[in-house]
Amino acid sequence: MPKPSDPPKNLRWTIIGAGNGGQSVCAHLAIMGYQVRLYDISPDTVNAINKQGGIELAGVVQGFGKIDRVTTDLSEAVRGAHIIMVIAPATAHRHIAKALAPFLQDDQIIVLHPGATCGALEFYKVLADEKCPVKVTIGETNTLIYACRSSRPGQATIFGIKNKLLVAALPARESSNIADKLQSAYPQVHAADNVLVTSFDNTNPIVHPAPILLNTAVIESQREWLFYREGITPAVGAFLEAMDQERIAVGKALGVELWSCKDQYAIEYGVHARTLADAVGNTAAYADIKGPNCLETRYVLEDIPMGLVPLVAIGKSLNVSVQRMETIIKLGEFILGKDLTTNGRTLEKIGLSEMTAGEIRRFIETGRKTEAHKSLNLNKDDLQC
Amino acid sequence: MPKPSDPPKNLRWTIIGAGNGGQSVCAHLAIMGYQVRLYDISPDTVNAINKQGGIELAGVVQGFGKIDRVTTDLSEAVRGAHIIMVIAPATAHRHIAKALAPFLQDDQIIVLHPGATCGALEFYKVLADEKCPVKVTIGETNTLIYACRSSRPGQATIFGIKNKLLVAALPARESSNIADKLQSAYPQVHAADNVLVTSFDNTNPIVHPAPILLNTAVIESQREWLFYREGITPAVGAFLEAMDQERIAVGKALGVELWSCKDQYAIEYGVHARTLADAVGNTAAYADIKGPNCLETRYVLEDIPMGLVPLVAIGKSLNVSVQRMETIIKLGEFILGKDLTTNGRTLEKIGLSEMTAGEIRRFIETGRKTEAHKSLNLNKDDLQC
Repeated sequence: MPKPSDPPKNLRWTIIGAGNGGQSVCAHLAIMGYQVRLYDISPDTVNAINKQGGIELAGVVQGFGKIDRVTTDLSEAVRGAHIIMVIAPATAHRHIAKALAPFLQDDQIIVLHPGATCGALEFYKVLADEKCPVKVTIGETNTLIYACRSSRPGQATIFGIKNKLLVAALPARESSNIADKLQSAYPQVHAADNVLVTSFDNTNPIVHPAPILLNTAVIESQREWLFYREGITPAVGAFLEAMDQERIAVGKALGVELWSCKDQYAIEYGVHARTLADAVGNTAAYADIKGPNCLETRYVLEDIPMGLVPLVAIGKSLNVSVQRMETIIKLGEFILGKDLTTNGRTLEKIGLSEMTAGEIRRFIETGRKTEAHKSLNLNKDDLQC
Repeated sequence: MPKPSDPPKNLRWTIIGAGNGGQSVCAHLAIMGYQVRLYDISPDTVNAINKQGGIELAGVVQGFGKIDRVTTDLSEAVRGAHIIMVIAPATAHRHIAKALAPFLQDDQIIVLHPGATCGALEFYKVLADEKCPVKVTIGETNTLIYACRSSRPGQATIFGIKNKLLVAALPARESSNIADKLQSAYPQVHAADNVLVTSFDNTNPIVHPAPILLNTAVIESQREWLFYREGITPAVGAFLEAMDQERIAVGKALGVELWSCKDQYAIEYGVHARTLADAVGNTAAYADIKGPNCLETRYVLEDIPMGLVPLVAIGKSLNVSVQRMETIIKLGEFILGKDLTTNGRTLEKIGLSEMTAGEIRRFIETGRKTEAHKSLNLNKDDLQC
């Protein structure tokens, strides 16, 4: 992993969320010499980390990361921070946005790490709806930079660090600014063209929910199974490839060129195969990954509402065929007996209702809606907060 | 099994299809003393049965059924028959109807045994489209009267005979006439109100396709699995129960009261359980039934186009919610990469296009469409052939 050159120690970071990723980022940044604060909703987690004054890090980066402050007080956590990094399930993003709105300060940068699909758009819309009066920049990454795990509050292990992390801002002109700031700690960061690139690059909604649902009886049998090796058989893989083409078509309708999942496996893992099922079958990193023994998994509960729902909503609004993704949303809702749409990233929730492809692109670039659409927006002013 | 009283030996039967069911019926009728002819499309099958002059029957009825004539010539097979019984996959019904049309004679009775969902309606429509000039009666049963198997052409085993078989005709006023004729051989036969009853009573489209699709990876794994015991876990069962309610709602919209699948298990097998998954798990007859090791099974290829497709078509035309059934059709088409709708029993194929519930009921009762609908029909005359 390339080392960051002489970090500007005056850059203050706040991490929202003390899960696997949040603790790993906190500890790593602290070990690099940054001032870091950590927010978590759980008093037990916060107390445990406070008790030992920081987080022990193991794996490819080792040491003790001394955390400046660990707190359940959001106001205290974010006051004076330059970068607020949200490392939480995508289902929590809108609640975090609403909770943060009163405490944000001018010129703060918020990075959803990662944003899942359309996280920055949803965050932006919530702050606009909350009439947040300050000027902040909202960005999102395409993925989490680490493969990591936390065994308990105060301990984390980084198994690997990705070679490349994309970041984009809304509006897009701020992307390079965010990328510059993040590069001081993470030279792997590159600015993407805009948040559509980082959002549509997320392939979890393609790869996760369908294999869960098509293995419903296996999951309920309670026997151990391998998610990729046993769950993605030829017919399942062929279905995922066809569904992936729908994702690519949604991107294309908005001028975004995307790699297929299979191409991503070739690029990331050097696995070249004729089919997606063969590709995941040949990916060593996936060989031992077990499937869940419960249908109520984030592979469905997060990747459907925060992934498939916005892809389908955008696709349908632009007359792109998204029938396979739509079928999986419905099947997931029926099998789990849950509405996964209403609280998901609908067009309204991500602020893209009744817009043409051109209007969406303009909004992504500028953060402003056309005159015609201003009146449709809850916030009558330009979306600048 | 109750014995039929002194069969009227002059009743001549023709069976179309020398599969498990067709051979069992042929042999049983012949043993009872009827004149029976048998048609099959396969010369090898026909030659093998002709060679031994009939069919050896084992199981709950034993003996040798001497078959009057076994042939691949449809004209020869049906000439002079009083009852033509079609015992073939539902996907073949429309082809059989078209092939039979030129050879039918006045007053012949055609019984689809069983009709699957809307088999009699489809048959009726094909004969009308073919402008079949004679007057025949078309009926269908709700199921096959036997549990049976044929090990080779010329041999069949009847494991069990059902206590009750429903039959209905199109138009409904002919139902008791068909039932009377069939009762001479099968006293288990009862006349149902109309063909909607026999059609909607078929629960195969509920119970078969979804467990196949929700076990896609298991099927492709090639390991042995038990269709009911392992394939219908609690979440799969709950989904089937909700889908079954859609079937029941379609019936209700046309004035037909239906038992749920779960109630049917209680009635047929004496299995009383809180959930469908528990019911099938406790049904001894299902304990050893293996699931297929191939996705291209009649559980999908027959039960979707000939079962779910007409239920969804009728449901949607009457504004009944059939979303689960629709989702399974789409999923089946996507997973198998096949169009299962176009060649299925669409509204047009079963002759119910653009009709209200009242118009459908009138048509079912009388075999005639309203004046308003006559002009929409390919056959301008009343559908009497």
